[in-house]
Amino acid sequence: MADRDVSGFFYPRTATGRSSLLPPPPWYYSGDLLTVEYRTDPERVAALLPAPLAPARQDPGAVALIWADWQSCGADRVELLDPVRSQYKEAFVVVRCSFDGGTYSRCAYIWVDKDFAMLRGIHQGYPKKLGSIHMTRSHPMTEAAPAIAPGGRFGATLAAADRRLAQVVVTLAEPSSSNGFVNGHPMAHHRWLPSIDGAGDAHVELIESGGASATIGPTYRADVDEISLFDSPTEELADLPVREVIGGYYRQVGVVWDGGRTLWKG
Amino acid sequence: MADRDVSGFFYPRTATGRSSLLPPPPWYYSGDLLTVEYRTDPERVAALLPAPLAPARQDPGAVALIWADWQSCGADRVELLDPVRSQYKEAFVVVRCSFDGGTYSRCAYIWVDKDFAMLRGIHQGYPKKLGSIHMTRSHPMTEAAPAIAPGGRFGATLAAADRRLAQVVVTLAEPSSSNGFVNGHPMAHHRWLPSIDGAGDAHVELIESGGASATIGPTYRADVDEISLFDSPTEELADLPVREVIGGYYRQVGVVWDGGRTLWKG
Amino acid sequence: MADRDVSGFFYPRTATGRSSLLPPPPWYYSGDLLTVEYRTDPERVAALLPAPLAPARQDPGAVALIWADWQSCGADRVELLDPVRSQYKEAFVVVRCSFDGGTYSRCAYIWVDKDFAMLRGIHQGYPKKLGSIHMTRSHPMTEAAPAIAPGGRFGATLAAADRRLAQVVVTLAEPSSSNGFVNGHPMAHHRWLPSIDGAGDAHVELIESGGASATIGPTYRADVDEISLFDSPTEELADLPVREVIGGYYRQVGVVWDGGRTLWKG
Amino acid sequence: MADRDVSGFFYPRTATGRSSLLPPPPWYYSGDLLTVEYRTDPERVAALLPAPLAPARQDPGAVALIWADWQSCGADRVELLDPVRSQYKEAFVVVRCSFDGGTYSRCAYIWVDKDFAMLRGIHQGYPKKLGSIHMTRSHPMTEAAPAIAPGGRFGATLAAADRRLAQVVVTLAEPSSSNGFVNGHPMAHHRWLPSIDGAGDAHVELIESGGASATIGPTYRADVDEISLFDSPTEELADLPVREVIGGYYRQVGVVWDGGRTLWKG
Repeated sequence: MADRDVSGFFYPRTATGRSSLLPPPPWYYSGDLLTVEYRTDPERVAALLPAPLAPARQDPGAVALIWADWQSCGADRVELLDPVRSQYKEAFVVVRCSFDGGTYSRCAYIWVDKDFAMLRGIHQGYPKKLGSIHMTRSHPMTEAAPAIAPGGRFGATLAAADRRLAQVVVTLAEPSSSNGFVNGHPMAHHRWLPSIDGAGDAHVELIESGGASATIGPTYRADVDEISLFDSPTEELADLPVREVIGGYYRQVGVVWDGGRTLWKG
Repeated sequence: MADRDVSGFFYPRTATGRSSLLPPPPWYYSGDLLTVEYRTDPERVAALLPAPLAPARQDPGAVALIWADWQSCGADRVELLDPVRSQYKEAFVVVRCSFDGGTYSRCAYIWVDKDFAMLRGIHQGYPKKLGSIHMTRSHPMTEAAPAIAPGGRFGATLAAADRRLAQVVVTLAEPSSSNGFVNGHPMAHHRWLPSIDGAGDAHVELIESGGASATIGPTYRADVDEISLFDSPTEELADLPVREVIGGYYRQVGVVWDGGRTLWKG
Repeated sequence: MADRDVSGFFYPRTATGRSSLLPPPPWYYSGDLLTVEYRTDPERVAALLPAPLAPARQDPGAVALIWADWQSCGADRVELLDPVRSQYKEAFVVVRCSFDGGTYSRCAYIWVDKDFAMLRGIHQGYPKKLGSIHMTRSHPMTEAAPAIAPGGRFGATLAAADRRLAQVVVTLAEPSSSNGFVNGHPMAHHRWLPSIDGAGDAHVELIESGGASATIGPTYRADVDEISLFDSPTEELADLPVREVIGGYYRQVGVVWDGGRTLWKG
Repeated sequence: MADRDVSGFFYPRTATGRSSLLPPPPWYYSGDLLTVEYRTDPERVAALLPAPLAPARQDPGAVALIWADWQSCGADRVELLDPVRSQYKEAFVVVRCSFDGGTYSRCAYIWVDKDFAMLRGIHQGYPKKLGSIHMTRSHPMTEAAPAIAPGGRFGATLAAADRRLAQVVVTLAEPSSSNGFVNGHPMAHHRWLPSIDGAGDAHVELIESGGASATIGPTYRADVDEISLFDSPTEELADLPVREVIGGYYRQVGVVWDGGRTLWKG
């Protein structure tokens, strides 16, 4: 089914493949994650789960709100020396669901700040928009930075279309082996492509994906000082209100992502 | 094949559809177009045409380099009053090709500056990246603007990943009924979605699309004072060198786009 | 007092002067202005007026909230053909004051989206911050744009530091000779430079400035459909609440600015 | 001379001082510095030194090209939890000069990516423009990041007005006590404010400033793999060509800045 007289993993494809906005997987990531987990009304989560997905059997109202400050690259690592092509930040909302007897994580909303990250979303089924994402950075010199240590305070903010959508503040409490449970399963994501003639979708696929490998760095449980979600005419993030805070986490991580598999075709 | 227990034309889909980055077509556009046409080596154009496309039978080395400064919206025009959601600029390269006896235009490269424009590209088969695009704007008060009249000089520039990729300067010469010929056919675009397991493409489709209707405003032929294409490690635009300038055009236009049709499936 | 073994109107100064972020005045502007005027509590305006300024004798609570979409350049107009250097947008708040028997306009807050505009503020006494400013653009093709005609609806928005600060919507009503009265006087602005040793200011000057000439284009009175001011931890714009809407205006204008004069030295 | 019926360290001043784009010093910084030092033609450096400055007596052609990735805040550290207000990057060119028997460092050109950093430049005499600045970030998880260790490779790039201006690549060699010598002296900067009537400058002052204190973190000498300077119609950075590479350095640092003193008034 593939067409390879032009090459390139994704758009634009040319004879050389050099123009492709994305190199072929595997993709490599190093970054910092700030996670807050909370419970919202389970029916609000259920409303985000199209067939063939069902709500998670346990704790179906659990939500993870995650910020990540990443550097990423392809196998030749060339982007790392031209860092405008490797650095990006993202903020995303993860819920859980069940399919065929298994439990999956699923990204409901996500904002990124680079085009290559946005196009990866088309491949991986992340529903990406552009946003302005910021997250306090730790630094060994603490004149203007928290340490990754108990008492370290981190803030994270998200805006899109010139509106602040979310902000959180956490204070690191103690080392933790866990980074939370909501984003801990393989991802179950829909890949949809609307039909060009307007009649439904030309492609509907549920895929499973996740890190092919991960290196876990320092991880802390954190007290959650603030979770604020703001309304916007184009977003429904604030329709997942915080009913009960579960906890906060800060983790440094390295990840390799190398594709996934089809779970179901619509 | 469609899944409609969630709604929304494209990502992210929710119960209400309100979060979708794109409203359903038709999509409405008002804007200014600056076009320069030139001939490059025909084999460079041919190398950009995957099967089942073939080079255009006449003038197969013709290229159009086009800048557009747009306002766009959906049927309810709500984006127009929150203009961060309706204004965007783009620069793109168009060549011609033939398929099944007909002549088509085809966008080889394109850069836009908003996420909604980028996602439209996934639907319409435009291989969009983010860029920084600028184009001189006419104004009735000419203290710091050209008039849309003979002698009016317009510049246009394109950058991506912090590198200038192209710049042109034109001087309006006289009213014209033509806006050039390279971008004058229906578009023939591939819609590719790579397989999640890395084995080729999960979806390969050639689609035809074009404006459902257009309102033509003032149009001028222009003398082309400069076309400069710059090299970049991630782009192949400069591999379409200018062998002969054909001409320049400036046009104000309104367009309605309302989908297309499948020409071929891979 | 001047030092001219390096040249350049403003930073950075070099032997050639070519690097200066600003050319010497006169500066030329073509653009569109959207103005809404309203009355707030007069003491809120008075609190923004340092000595030697006093409140305006008439209508001391009048405020103009103005959006402008500009193209600007120096005498050689070279920026117009490299439009990233000539296009910018701004949103600003104007109040009135009195000094030495005269009435002046004064910019209390202003946000711009380019560095050259920000540095002009240091010269002209506009207290500029960076912001994200958008304003509906008219277009002769109305598929996705209002006409500059009765019934034309325009929105304008302002954000800074990832927060929406203000948004307005107006509907053009009828042609008008007036563009409002709050921004109609010469500007009285302080130029302050804090002392490098922290002891007060090294330079305190009140200057008068205004357009050296202006070309007035189409001007409409507009009905004001919405004025919304939003709170922010770093801004006090919302502390000028709308007590009474005065009116709205839309104007296309060309301006030449060529310096001003010192009114008073601190 | 100061006027304190409004308050705020710098623009805009209000009754509360809350709107000021800058808090009063001291200012706190944590960040990473990448430095490459080289020799250019000494007369090119001399041409950047206005009276009363003279070239440095030793090694008068030495130049440091420095990238910094900062987090900064005022005394209450509130910006750290709203990191869009604390994070910024800069790239700058430092030369040396002599005044009154002493040797000083001096910033010839500098680009930053936030407004608060740009306004600090007006106070400190740094000739700041906006730019797009990127620098490879180290990370403890090295999937997509260098370690701060021998062999770690870092790239840094600078663009302004949609043009790439400079890029460097270095490879860390071994721990070093030195971070280079060009930026190692107190800074001697001019603070100029052009007269509002166009007649020279209203304020001319040479000030001395530098970090009030600094905490030095890991520092490495680095091999310089690439220094590329690109031409631009608005910049003269490429007029400081690399005649001889001196060396490269990578350092993590914390700094407190708390004002300076006047060296000379024009």
